[in-house]
Amino acid sequence: MKHFYQSEVKPYLITKSLNPENQETPIHFLNGDLVDEKLFYRRNHFSYPNFSSSFYFLPIVGLVHTPRTFSIQDLYSLPSRSIKMVLECSGDKRGLFEPKLFGEQWEKGAISQGIWKGVSLRTLLEHTGLVNSAKEFVFEAYDYGERPDSDSIFNFSRSLPIEKALEPDTIIAYEYNNQPIPFKHGFPLRLIVPGWYGMASVKWLKKITVIDKEFNGPFQTIDYVYYPNKENDNGKFPVTTVHVNSTIQYPLNSQLLHKGTYMIKGIAWTGNGRISKVEISIDDGQTWETCQLASAANKYSWISWNYKWEAVKKGEYTIKSKATDSQGNVQPSEPFWNRKGYGYNAIEKINVKVE
Amino acid sequence: MKHFYQSEVKPYLITKSLNPENQETPIHFLNGDLVDEKLFYRRNHFSYPNFSSSFYFLPIVGLVHTPRTFSIQDLYSLPSRSIKMVLECSGDKRGLFEPKLFGEQWEKGAISQGIWKGVSLRTLLEHTGLVNSAKEFVFEAYDYGERPDSDSIFNFSRSLPIEKALEPDTIIAYEYNNQPIPFKHGFPLRLIVPGWYGMASVKWLKKITVIDKEFNGPFQTIDYVYYPNKENDNGKFPVTTVHVNSTIQYPLNSQLLHKGTYMIKGIAWTGNGRISKVEISIDDGQTWETCQLASAANKYSWISWNYKWEAVKKGEYTIKSKATDSQGNVQPSEPFWNRKGYGYNAIEKINVKVE
Repeated sequence: MKHFYQSEVKPYLITKSLNPENQETPIHFLNGDLVDEKLFYRRNHFSYPNFSSSFYFLPIVGLVHTPRTFSIQDLYSLPSRSIKMVLECSGDKRGLFEPKLFGEQWEKGAISQGIWKGVSLRTLLEHTGLVNSAKEFVFEAYDYGERPDSDSIFNFSRSLPIEKALEPDTIIAYEYNNQPIPFKHGFPLRLIVPGWYGMASVKWLKKITVIDKEFNGPFQTIDYVYYPNKENDNGKFPVTTVHVNSTIQYPLNSQLLHKGTYMIKGIAWTGNGRISKVEISIDDGQTWETCQLASAANKYSWISWNYKWEAVKKGEYTIKSKATDSQGNVQPSEPFWNRKGYGYNAIEKINVKVE
Repeated sequence: MKHFYQSEVKPYLITKSLNPENQETPIHFLNGDLVDEKLFYRRNHFSYPNFSSSFYFLPIVGLVHTPRTFSIQDLYSLPSRSIKMVLECSGDKRGLFEPKLFGEQWEKGAISQGIWKGVSLRTLLEHTGLVNSAKEFVFEAYDYGERPDSDSIFNFSRSLPIEKALEPDTIIAYEYNNQPIPFKHGFPLRLIVPGWYGMASVKWLKKITVIDKEFNGPFQTIDYVYYPNKENDNGKFPVTTVHVNSTIQYPLNSQLLHKGTYMIKGIAWTGNGRISKVEISIDDGQTWETCQLASAANKYSWISWNYKWEAVKKGEYTIKSKATDSQGNVQPSEPFWNRKGYGYNAIEKINVKVE
């Protein structure tokens, strides 16, 4: 027997499903602004793929002048780019829609942040050239399986329009937080598309194909589409850029507090430029104050914010946070309802009671 | 680099707070009916205690003829009793109350099950005797701290009336699932009170004192009390026996399903005798069918149940489960509202959509 001086207490991923593995980040219990791979949310469509990384090569084919197959060593030898950025699942906060939507009930933790390092896709294209008629890039992954709406087997595949694919910050990443990308997050190579929701950042890259039309794979044309109507597909449009958003990390929703001074804290992020302002309300949105931002706002990364609150009076409080970005986007009072529940970014809201 | 043939996928505890540590069992993702310590919910009032288990002794004092101090070896040498049983926090399912109550937002996982082994308290009392005026047993634990409603420091302490304390199944446990009790669950000795909510099963036992009146510590008279009124304490009464209850483990709430045959499964338990029946409804309670029970019902332990559902028609379904115990208790349609949110046991309900 022994002394117990310290008992380690730590948060874990929050299990949403195990097959495929979908687990979210315990966003309220993070320290720092780089999320360790152990707490980085996992979002999969299929079982994890089996492939040999010993014989791993990434081909770029289709409408290029010189199709090429890149080894990982090839990538290491090219100029690199490191990007600290939010990766957010487009289903993040789906569980907050009222009435409830069906599907994975993500709460507020289908989001993480870290530093991805790799080579700009446009740098690779200097080695292959690009045919004039090129319109989209299709990124095929190693993971595959049946979709419930079809008897066919699909690999996970997504496309990018040429303009987005050629942005210097669209990279083929080989490191996460200065380590090889963890297998569950796309080892050895993952497409990273800053500013877009996570479905665009294809894991376990198998092949890149340049085509002259719009790609119509099911993860492009059935899933990851906003359907504004419950009963039909009218007005649908694709999920792309991350919406301006914020989350209160402390206090917790429904927390019982006692009179005292509290540092309310949270994060805010956007796929459009930078966060320019975070406001907070303690009185359910009647009055708003500006929060302190913990650092200068950077493109792609979340910003931590805080607000010192003197809880002097007993009672119930509805606390809200509202972020604005440099393109003038503001979190709306109500979420944009869409049938599959993507892109939730209504003003953040929690209730607490001071006793 | 290497092949990836298998990537381990496993559930974790669900973090509710870290200081003190409160984490719940991922009840929907359990295998088997003995919960591993890693997935056993953790519920604390204070930081983990520091004490030396090398000099550990358990005194029984107060209204006994011969006060005695028992070593762990003393306990090992006495006749033992093993009990497979549910331990459920009285705040389990608090998060389901509508409107929301304040306090720890336990979902459906503040419950676990395993085999506790130890010595009946009444066996220890054969060595101390008991004074006639004895009325309650007070169990003091090593964990302590400030309560937000007071400036004093309290150890966690709870009492049992003499009748409950002397039931043969009330044991001083030293093993959980055939191993020494994990530190976070009360090592080296934990009081185990089958049939009562978890607050009665005091961890890290420090001392047992027999008294001739009602104990009035704050975890007895302020917390763990049902307050039926929002604004006053009228009609309050203590939290004791576990209510008859059930949980649907599969499918998940808000899950999207496709036409097919599903095995709906769950657990049911009670602190009153045995589970005698579990019924299920697929049509929001209009019609009920009897579920298959996976084994004979035992006192104290949960029973697994299942029901084969042919989901042949598209649409939204409200699935309910309702358990009945051998004393005739049935889960109610509505939860018993009480200000601190204890003992939730309304009919279990989930919504799914078949596409």
